[in-house]
Amino acid sequence: MASELSQVDAAAVRAAADRIAPFVHRTPVHTSRRWDDHLGARLFFKCENFQVGGAFKARGAFNAVWSLGEQEAARGVATHSSGNHGAALALAAARRGIPAWVVVPRDASGFKRRAIERYGARVVACEPGISNREARLAALVEDCGATVVHPYDDDRVIAGQGTTALELLAQAPGIDLLLAPVGGGGLIAGCAVMARDLRPDIAVVAAEPAGADDCWQSMQRGERVRLEQVDTVADGLRASIGSRNWSLISRLVDEVVRVEEEEIIAATRLAWEVLKVVIEPSSAVPLAALLSGRLPVRGRRVGVVLSGGNVEVEGLAGRLSTCGLEFRL
Amino acid sequence: MASELSQVDAAAVRAAADRIAPFVHRTPVHTSRRWDDHLGARLFFKCENFQVGGAFKARGAFNAVWSLGEQEAARGVATHSSGNHGAALALAAARRGIPAWVVVPRDASGFKRRAIERYGARVVACEPGISNREARLAALVEDCGATVVHPYDDDRVIAGQGTTALELLAQAPGIDLLLAPVGGGGLIAGCAVMARDLRPDIAVVAAEPAGADDCWQSMQRGERVRLEQVDTVADGLRASIGSRNWSLISRLVDEVVRVEEEEIIAATRLAWEVLKVVIEPSSAVPLAALLSGRLPVRGRRVGVVLSGGNVEVEGLAGRLSTCGLEFRL
Repeated sequence: MASELSQVDAAAVRAAADRIAPFVHRTPVHTSRRWDDHLGARLFFKCENFQVGGAFKARGAFNAVWSLGEQEAARGVATHSSGNHGAALALAAARRGIPAWVVVPRDASGFKRRAIERYGARVVACEPGISNREARLAALVEDCGATVVHPYDDDRVIAGQGTTALELLAQAPGIDLLLAPVGGGGLIAGCAVMARDLRPDIAVVAAEPAGADDCWQSMQRGERVRLEQVDTVADGLRASIGSRNWSLISRLVDEVVRVEEEEIIAATRLAWEVLKVVIEPSSAVPLAALLSGRLPVRGRRVGVVLSGGNVEVEGLAGRLSTCGLEFRL
Repeated sequence: MASELSQVDAAAVRAAADRIAPFVHRTPVHTSRRWDDHLGARLFFKCENFQVGGAFKARGAFNAVWSLGEQEAARGVATHSSGNHGAALALAAARRGIPAWVVVPRDASGFKRRAIERYGARVVACEPGISNREARLAALVEDCGATVVHPYDDDRVIAGQGTTALELLAQAPGIDLLLAPVGGGGLIAGCAVMARDLRPDIAVVAAEPAGADDCWQSMQRGERVRLEQVDTVADGLRASIGSRNWSLISRLVDEVVRVEEEEIIAATRLAWEVLKVVIEPSSAVPLAALLSGRLPVRGRRVGVVLSGGNVEVEGLAGRLSTCGLEFRL
């Protein structure tokens, strides 16, 4: 298994911020007195569900696509993605006027797959599982010659995702704990780099579904674990962390908190009903860590990345109706 | 039937804005390139779903409660409400430290009734229908001596709701059409007063469910119509317009557009899935007017008030699953 180290530093994140500024939103930060009162903390929700393409993924994808030289760009870009990175790459490629191919596993959200197509990329189906995704992508680029922009194990992507923390810490001063979901690890790794540079004492915590807990397992063992079989409603977090991501996470992330499926679903509902923002289940994983009490935050100022909002209402509602857990504020 | 004329003018709205500024949010304005491309227009969504209490109603309620003299305030306030005004009045009363009573019809949303209770008001149930609501409220205030803050037929409330337009026209310059839902008419009346003062040429359009179309019927007949029987998923728009509201609407509103139930439901879904904001069906009524083509807006700059976001996800999802209509952008 290849083990590449990331070279991403705060300067790379700042350069990414300049590069993507013309294309992405500086998303708002929302707060909730009711939520704060319940937890005895101050929460600052970074609303990446309002980002271009409905998820933070635009940050990394635009940074990668606009980092390419002219000749390389002209051959197009390709990736594998459960959805949001694919959509973001399609948008970035369309904006640069180059072709994009996206390998999408068959268990991905149909809602997300349709977005990738709508944004103009060609969708190539594959079987689920990280090995299948990577094998299909390798075969594809051999055919079409496109440049791979990996959904997370890519320094340009990691640096782009880190701009989320750069903005959040400027928008909400005094944050002493940064909380984000972890799937492949691009978001938490980039944010950890940036946050630790801005505020060396900040705590950085990743939240992960117990049904796809490769990051937690990796932290326990002290080496990167890859899982072929995962099971979680948080469809954006089914990937296993990449080697570059692990090189940053293992050094900069303080803790990984695992949450259960019903906690994710109940937290999604509460975000919709209390914050009035549509977030997808992957984005509710950090909220589940807070609401379940698995991550105590009393007295702290917590930055929470709401990573995306690409979800089909009815599908999720079906899960809500069978969920036996309800969080209350 | 009593027929009071409103005295609300732009100065009253500006005074309300100053009075409520310490208590309410200056809500954000969202845009959607996808939505704009589809309609060939520029839309500016005023997100009152993020307002204190989850709806624009806080504006009118805080203005009314903080307009009261000390002695009057001390006896408390009372109202009838399908939900959002009751919650807003409860919040305003709690903030001023005075009691609040809210008459709630039995067909009101349980989600909204629980919010009223959570905010500390006493809930009094009544049968549905505007006459029943008003009779129960009259009996109640005779008992408790509280001051009635009517949900819409009250100049302090109308002036407060008008601050929505004051903010929106400052946040999104160049708007030439203002679109808001109409139920009792507080929002559209206050907004019409303010918008016409700021921009005399602006078009002001009200959107109304066909199943509760008293405003449309009133415009047709040239006199105020009250309906006892209404049927719409837009639970915030079941009330009939008040006499003060009518005195403004009949003079300042250009057009009332009616929409069907399935259009409301399909528009709600699209707001959730595309704008990523949770809005309640009442707030989707203006969107339904746009998406259905009943209100052509090509080439225009349209301010749209998303009036509130107090909705139980599962209940609405059940409606979505049986809705035969789907709008696509």
